[in-house]
Amino acid sequence: MAERGYETTTLREVAARAGVSPGLLYRYFPSKRAVILALYDELSAEYVRQSAAMSPGPWRERFLFALKTSLRVLEPHRTTLRALIPVLVGDPEEGLFAEGTRFSRLRVQGTFEAAIVGARDAPRRPLGAALGRVLYLAHLAILLFWLLDRSSGQGATASLVALVQRILPGVALTLRLPGVRQFALSADALLREALLDAPAPAPAGLG
Amino acid sequence: MAERGYETTTLREVAARAGVSPGLLYRYFPSKRAVILALYDELSAEYVRQSAAMSPGPWRERFLFALKTSLRVLEPHRTTLRALIPVLVGDPEEGLFAEGTRFSRLRVQGTFEAAIVGARDAPRRPLGAALGRVLYLAHLAILLFWLLDRSSGQGATASLVALVQRILPGVALTLRLPGVRQFALSADALLREALLDAPAPAPAGLG
Repeated sequence: MAERGYETTTLREVAARAGVSPGLLYRYFPSKRAVILALYDELSAEYVRQSAAMSPGPWRERFLFALKTSLRVLEPHRTTLRALIPVLVGDPEEGLFAEGTRFSRLRVQGTFEAAIVGARDAPRRPLGAALGRVLYLAHLAILLFWLLDRSSGQGATASLVALVQRILPGVALTLRLPGVRQFALSADALLREALLDAPAPAPAGLG
Repeated sequence: MAERGYETTTLREVAARAGVSPGLLYRYFPSKRAVILALYDELSAEYVRQSAAMSPGPWRERFLFALKTSLRVLEPHRTTLRALIPVLVGDPEEGLFAEGTRFSRLRVQGTFEAAIVGARDAPRRPLGAALGRVLYLAHLAILLFWLLDRSSGQGATASLVALVQRILPGVALTLRLPGVRQFALSADALLREALLDAPAPAPAGLG
């Protein structure tokens, strides 16, 4: 799939490349959809495992740890994920915000929420969890940037993460302003309405 | 294509739906790729036409005008663009940052640069053009949010634009701080390195 794209690859070809009979493959993965869901499940479980090493500290350090861990876990799979962008971003059934993939997504989203809520300097409820979700979405935007990044060795993504790291202290300071706190709460509310808590979309072709 | 997706639609089906012979369609659109390029060309030209009404004023008002004009021009085509997300975002040859689509992209990007550089309160070179490109990318992120937005009537996107409008005066103020100016310049440099000025990507399957 990494070579030929999701749409044009058949399970028969996957079986041939894996060196197993189509019958055996179908037993474990009855559809291409099942392959994608298994990939999400495996990567998100690995992410939760590696995130367990998050140390106590201020929320901005914990967020950076959550972000860098995500990039590290996904790094070996970049070519595959690059080929799966059409599915990850656009697909109403197997995309990142779809109903069927919610379980894996909530694992990662929950890690970002916990990174903020469990920080030494956690903002009070409900701002802490809201900030966690906004930062989770920002992290997804950075992952998309990384997948599209055509600079040598994705050096631009490394620069972007360094830039985020440099501005975070300033961002943390502005979060003491009521206007900025309100901004984070409003941003969280509309991200939930549009993507995170939205009901399952209409079947393809009617949306 | 809006109904069945880009990959699985054939030009023969497009011809049948359009009520023309496949021969006639092939004469004007020798490939599905040509259909996409024509769509980009048409939409970006319409965008430039409607953006001509931008009035003099501060850069944040001109940016908002550029952003809202983009949403208005694309609005009637949302279902089609929604189905084309896999191509727009992920495709190395027909995607938004591909070599072959650069002409249409530069029309829109140039409008955002001109919105800032030509403002009454334009930041000095090279910050003006850099800010224009960063805002052009921010606008693309908002368009992606709009396409994925599952809230009723894409109300969350309208809230997001209103939120951006509300925070822009504060953002404009912080741009007087040397640290924030440097941030905008750094962000622009890495966006160019990763996406905007990057050389054409390696053929699919090798990247």
